[in-house]
Amino acid sequence: MAAAAPPLKDELDIVIPTIRNLDFLEMWRPFFEQYHLIIVQDGDPSKTIKVPDGFDYELYNRNDINKILGPRASCISFKDSACRCFGYMVSKKKYIYTIDDDCFVAKDPSGKDINALEQHIKNLLCPSTPYFFNTLYDPFRDGADFVRGYPFSLREGVPTAVSHGLWLNIPDYDAPTQLVKPLERNTRYVDMVLTIPKGTLFPMCGMNLAFDRDLIGPAMYFGLMGDGQPIGRYDDMWAGWCCKVICDHLGLGIKTGLPYIYHSKASNPFVNLKKEYNGIFWQEEIIPFFQNLNLSKESTTVQKCYVEMAKQVNEKLGKIDPYFVKLADAMVTWIEAWDELNPATKDTAKIPNGAAK
Amino acid sequence: MAAAAPPLKDELDIVIPTIRNLDFLEMWRPFFEQYHLIIVQDGDPSKTIKVPDGFDYELYNRNDINKILGPRASCISFKDSACRCFGYMVSKKKYIYTIDDDCFVAKDPSGKDINALEQHIKNLLCPSTPYFFNTLYDPFRDGADFVRGYPFSLREGVPTAVSHGLWLNIPDYDAPTQLVKPLERNTRYVDMVLTIPKGTLFPMCGMNLAFDRDLIGPAMYFGLMGDGQPIGRYDDMWAGWCCKVICDHLGLGIKTGLPYIYHSKASNPFVNLKKEYNGIFWQEEIIPFFQNLNLSKESTTVQKCYVEMAKQVNEKLGKIDPYFVKLADAMVTWIEAWDELNPATKDTAKIPNGAAK
Repeated sequence: MAAAAPPLKDELDIVIPTIRNLDFLEMWRPFFEQYHLIIVQDGDPSKTIKVPDGFDYELYNRNDINKILGPRASCISFKDSACRCFGYMVSKKKYIYTIDDDCFVAKDPSGKDINALEQHIKNLLCPSTPYFFNTLYDPFRDGADFVRGYPFSLREGVPTAVSHGLWLNIPDYDAPTQLVKPLERNTRYVDMVLTIPKGTLFPMCGMNLAFDRDLIGPAMYFGLMGDGQPIGRYDDMWAGWCCKVICDHLGLGIKTGLPYIYHSKASNPFVNLKKEYNGIFWQEEIIPFFQNLNLSKESTTVQKCYVEMAKQVNEKLGKIDPYFVKLADAMVTWIEAWDELNPATKDTAKIPNGAAK
Repeated sequence: MAAAAPPLKDELDIVIPTIRNLDFLEMWRPFFEQYHLIIVQDGDPSKTIKVPDGFDYELYNRNDINKILGPRASCISFKDSACRCFGYMVSKKKYIYTIDDDCFVAKDPSGKDINALEQHIKNLLCPSTPYFFNTLYDPFRDGADFVRGYPFSLREGVPTAVSHGLWLNIPDYDAPTQLVKPLERNTRYVDMVLTIPKGTLFPMCGMNLAFDRDLIGPAMYFGLMGDGQPIGRYDDMWAGWCCKVICDHLGLGIKTGLPYIYHSKASNPFVNLKKEYNGIFWQEEIIPFFQNLNLSKESTTVQKCYVEMAKQVNEKLGKIDPYFVKLADAMVTWIEAWDELNPATKDTAKIPNGAAK
């Protein structure tokens, strides 16, 4: 019984970082089974990860990463889900969807299962509007449009590079908020997608995230977290800050809102606090750094932007802690590794005409 | 039978511009009856406007405006709902809610009547977060909070100056969109309030709008529209651009989203096109002007900001059309009239400590 092929079937990989058997995929079978999966094992490589039958996948453990990247493997985090970005690098597809293994299928208010991937694809395939806020939100959605007073010259929009989805049930809170509000659950289904305006940073969560590799892939580096690092749970935040600044510079859009997944389990707030506490201090300096970061006109590709950014991280954030010097080096290593594995896309990310500022 | 007093009963005026009998108030009776109304008659002053029994109101027609303001009455539009801003000026209350007379009570998805005013008051009384985007939207709402990665130093927020509500049924489209999509209706109830980020402009609609007079009142000028002017339907847009730039400068917030009203009737798109067509061209230059407008450190009150802005309108937009020279003059006249009628608040708008940039 041949069903119609789902959208972008041959142009999208699903990247999953994990340390356990992937039973959660059973629930996603109707939506994921026809796509290719890239599984990145984030702990002990001697452990075997079981994947339910019928899924098409490739799996990389630490030994594989070391073999493929050689000395450059140092830029990929170990024992932390930040290692997922290795999957972005080895993919040969245009689009990536990444999801955590504790995320289940959510239901919309009518009780219907939400096909999160389908909504992400919709978000990525229609333009973003970062230069002016539309009060009816995504103007490209059915039943919506640009409202009175929206400049006509901006209605074409810009290409969408990232689609950031949300979470019902367990919200993505930091350790202090988890400790203070242990019982809070997100039950509000907000039926909306919007573009995050140019010049505004946001906390990008890696739990339910899709992006266009060709447009922004080389900036989707999840940093150095986990084993041997003084910080955790800032991997996706780091990628979000970097991506947003680069998207703003290159004239690309980032959307947030729909789709929701059901986040099943709160992580341990005490463990989280230990991972986060340096970040809680550091982000007070990191965020102004990114808010004020200017990229030069010469940085016309994602790679060039990213290398320029790494230099500034070294110079300006290196003063906070030696960790940032190491991170800046890892950012450069990441780009070298990306370009080695993706020679065809080297410095060829599609830049919309005249969009670079 | 004494009901409990509604929130801010003695601190809020409802301003309604109209040319007809106010039968629409019957539907709002449960929500508005305990508040004071300021009705501004926007056409022929010899016509009598009937107000349903039981409402507490004052009514101003053109003769009243001329008598109260003398030669300064020239800054108040005639035969256009832009005249509503006269109501903001004569109010003695801290908060204003303004609504059009073709706006009815909307229902939420459960079928319950929406108390729009109550939601606006909630929006105004809790802080805004313009410096960083929160992916679960208004963090001060029940069941929501700041998400992981939101800087702790920004969680106090800033005072909210404006609450911009939306419309079910007839969306607020410009004439070209009305012409192209005559049957489009807004049926999507988005259960959300958010702060419009700093540095981002938005199309502010005057149909369903609340604000804090003490914080932003003198910037809520609806310009010169209607009789004798080359433009219409840009009154609220003008106020929105000015207010947003001044709020950004003074460290104040603007929220949009809930509450919805039910907008009953589409205005005539042919008439609208005639009013709008100059604006459609002009806004392509006006919006970059506001996006790049910098106010000086010396402008520490709304009045000072507004007068400085008027000067720049004269200098930079005056080149587009002599209309903007006239408008810049009217902006100054408006501030003079405001200060005359509100001597206690002259240059005393509360500025949060150190928020002015």
